[in-house]
Amino acid sequence: MTTPAPRRLAIIAGSGDLPLQVGIQARRDGFEVFFVLIAGSARPEDFNGFETTKLRLGQLGRFLKSLRTRDIKDVVIIGAVVRPALGDLVPDFGLLRHYFAIRHAFKGGDDHLLGGMVRLLENQGLTVRAPSEFLGELMPPSGTLSAMKPSRTALDEIDRGKAVLEALSAFDIGQAVVVADSRIVAVEGIEGTDQMLARVASLRAAGRLKPSARGVLVKLPKRGQDLRVDMPTVGPATIRNAAEAGLEGIAIAANAVLLADRPRTIALADSSGLFLHAIDWS
Amino acid sequence: MTTPAPRRLAIIAGSGDLPLQVGIQARRDGFEVFFVLIAGSARPEDFNGFETTKLRLGQLGRFLKSLRTRDIKDVVIIGAVVRPALGDLVPDFGLLRHYFAIRHAFKGGDDHLLGGMVRLLENQGLTVRAPSEFLGELMPPSGTLSAMKPSRTALDEIDRGKAVLEALSAFDIGQAVVVADSRIVAVEGIEGTDQMLARVASLRAAGRLKPSARGVLVKLPKRGQDLRVDMPTVGPATIRNAAEAGLEGIAIAANAVLLADRPRTIALADSSGLFLHAIDWS
Repeated sequence: MTTPAPRRLAIIAGSGDLPLQVGIQARRDGFEVFFVLIAGSARPEDFNGFETTKLRLGQLGRFLKSLRTRDIKDVVIIGAVVRPALGDLVPDFGLLRHYFAIRHAFKGGDDHLLGGMVRLLENQGLTVRAPSEFLGELMPPSGTLSAMKPSRTALDEIDRGKAVLEALSAFDIGQAVVVADSRIVAVEGIEGTDQMLARVASLRAAGRLKPSARGVLVKLPKRGQDLRVDMPTVGPATIRNAAEAGLEGIAIAANAVLLADRPRTIALADSSGLFLHAIDWS
Repeated sequence: MTTPAPRRLAIIAGSGDLPLQVGIQARRDGFEVFFVLIAGSARPEDFNGFETTKLRLGQLGRFLKSLRTRDIKDVVIIGAVVRPALGDLVPDFGLLRHYFAIRHAFKGGDDHLLGGMVRLLENQGLTVRAPSEFLGELMPPSGTLSAMKPSRTALDEIDRGKAVLEALSAFDIGQAVVVADSRIVAVEGIEGTDQMLARVASLRAAGRLKPSARGVLVKLPKRGQDLRVDMPTVGPATIRNAAEAGLEGIAIAANAVLLADRPRTIALADSSGLFLHAIDWS
């Protein structure tokens, strides 16, 4: 009798804690894990005890070869990587062969870029898996996670924010909005959620929001967003920034928004008196 | 034989040059003009040669009486007035009588507020007229106003921006967006166009936009926006801020966006190398 060959998983790792968490869970689940660390984003010293290689963005040929050598067919992409300018990539031959597909992917929003990358890997016979498979409790189901519950006003504002985000979804924007006083106060563009919240804090400081109108942050994936490569994330910084903006709380999509550092995020929501609420979304 | 009684027009004047321009044109058109200057917004010394009265926001009773006394039935509202908090209004008896209608109008977006005020005045037998009736060439028809014409890329970006604004229109937001590199870069919330453009300038300075991706500002009325009381406006500051954001140009809705200080605005667009283009919109 032979033991079955272990399943193998390559984790393409950007910055942050999540790549390591995915690796630890995948190993627990019986995978043999191989980390591909993106130079300048992932720090090699964080991955002791795992097999690693370091690649720069653009070294697609070397990447594909390193997987073929190890007979790896499954890939997870996780962690933050700064969106590169096409001209900043240091191409190897593998990238050049795919130049036109990549150039096409680089035109348009992030969905387009990441979707293009997933297709490119899948055309090479790889399976791109969702990090959420290995992140269980960091993707909470529907319900209130904090001690505070959303008020009736907040629930109405959440509905309104959700409707706006759905309307924007077709345009590959709109992961987050702030609704207060029955008005859409801020819409996230490419500046990101934290900068949008800083803007709301400024508007409040300038007296542009009624003190009595607290408001909510609503953060959802875009419709059609590929959660394998691009998960909306809420963490301690989001809570801090929402508190500074004077908001009542934060609504996220159940099973589709990542709670980075879950215990600290919920504890911070509680100590700030904010609600954190996962709404049904599919 | 008697000469016909002159038509009478009350102009409720906020800050800026436009109230005076409307008054001058209305007088040319044969109206007898009466200015109601909003205290803290319009400066009395700008209106020499016209009959004026000064009122604070909230003095609705006095306002209605001053019109009845003069047998005035037509009203234009023009110029910027800071959106007051309901609690900041110094109410007179006329306002108190309409308290519930006004309180209702104060909940929701600007459309809702201004629409409520228009209905309130119309219920008093007044006709609220559009300032554009008296602002002819400041509301340009479709076509390019600047020496620069929009590029093919810019025309595509204008289409995309227009589609986003239409999708947002249902939510009483979305007068302006910036589109660059085929992406929606920024969406205007309550911060206003100038602050949105400042944000795009920051994003560009931080390297978040490709230097080759210039981009456009698209500014339109919301669908259903009541142009009698709330006109989107583009002026010299808009041009300066768009230039600092590195944009290729500005698209506005034909016959529905006000060009403040037209000669200076167009001259500034030309000296900055920006296009200013009015698109068909209805």
